[in-house]
Amino acid sequence: MEKSTIQTDSPVFTSKALLEHWQGHRNLTRRVIEAFPEDKLFTHSIGGMRPFSELAMEMIMMAGPGVYGAATGKWIEYGKLDGFTNKPKPATKQELLELWDEVTPYLEKYWEQISSERFQESELAFGQYEGTIISFIFYFIDNEIHHRAQGYVYLRSLGIEPPFFWERN
Amino acid sequence: MEKSTIQTDSPVFTSKALLEHWQGHRNLTRRVIEAFPEDKLFTHSIGGMRPFSELAMEMIMMAGPGVYGAATGKWIEYGKLDGFTNKPKPATKQELLELWDEVTPYLEKYWEQISSERFQESELAFGQYEGTIISFIFYFIDNEIHHRAQGYVYLRSLGIEPPFFWERN
Repeated sequence: MEKSTIQTDSPVFTSKALLEHWQGHRNLTRRVIEAFPEDKLFTHSIGGMRPFSELAMEMIMMAGPGVYGAATGKWIEYGKLDGFTNKPKPATKQELLELWDEVTPYLEKYWEQISSERFQESELAFGQYEGTIISFIFYFIDNEIHHRAQGYVYLRSLGIEPPFFWERN
Repeated sequence: MEKSTIQTDSPVFTSKALLEHWQGHRNLTRRVIEAFPEDKLFTHSIGGMRPFSELAMEMIMMAGPGVYGAATGKWIEYGKLDGFTNKPKPATKQELLELWDEVTPYLEKYWEQISSERFQESELAFGQYEGTIISFIFYFIDNEIHHRAQGYVYLRSLGIEPPFFWERN
């Protein structure tokens, strides 16, 4: 077979690479949580936006149930999800970080159960979002980058240098 | 061939889908530029950060030369890039939007020249960043999401409602 020189619709990203990419982003987001002073994490806001603790909780509530839904086709909201049922909402930075770290192996576990065909399947996620599984996964990641960047502005406004954007380990 | 049920390293995203994903993000970023009042686009800042016009210029300077480098292996900085040489820096919102819109077909043109094997090749981009072509592309997109989100905070701090994050058309 000839080596292709122009190929406009070839696969460019595998499932494994995408999970690594996401976990790399999650490592960075974890450092942003850590960079906040305890009180500011739960209170600091600009322009009426939510404090960073709430934005981080949104990421957790998307990632956990999101990957579970991607793997199983069952879209269950965070509070009702096996393993996270009746968990009290984190009230300290330490509790938030602990919850963050629980999601890490959870993603690994359910990611392995997403079949190759599954990524291209269309579905109604959480009873309201129409799209393919891969489009949901990208939405979860993009949404995390988006809200984390808002945390960068919060930190800068507090005179705190945020972690380097390009460090993902 | 059996339908796979578990496949942890299968292709999940094609070149074409990735370009559409990026252009969707670029549509949204364009709306964020539009949402800024003319003067605030070039002056408004929080915590010593750059105004949104500068962040948008960074996206342009990454996207144009970035996709050119991905396609050709030549990593040429923005000001020296064919088609953008000696272009004055946009001084108005209109000029910035016009430059933004010039990059759109430029991405389409050079994207088509990136071969399927090329995405996985390792290279030294701009003489200093080591990585695969696909890792650079993701960096360009993620960096755009990151800085655009900072524009969201700027808009909120000005009492302006930003465009919906999920609208990409």
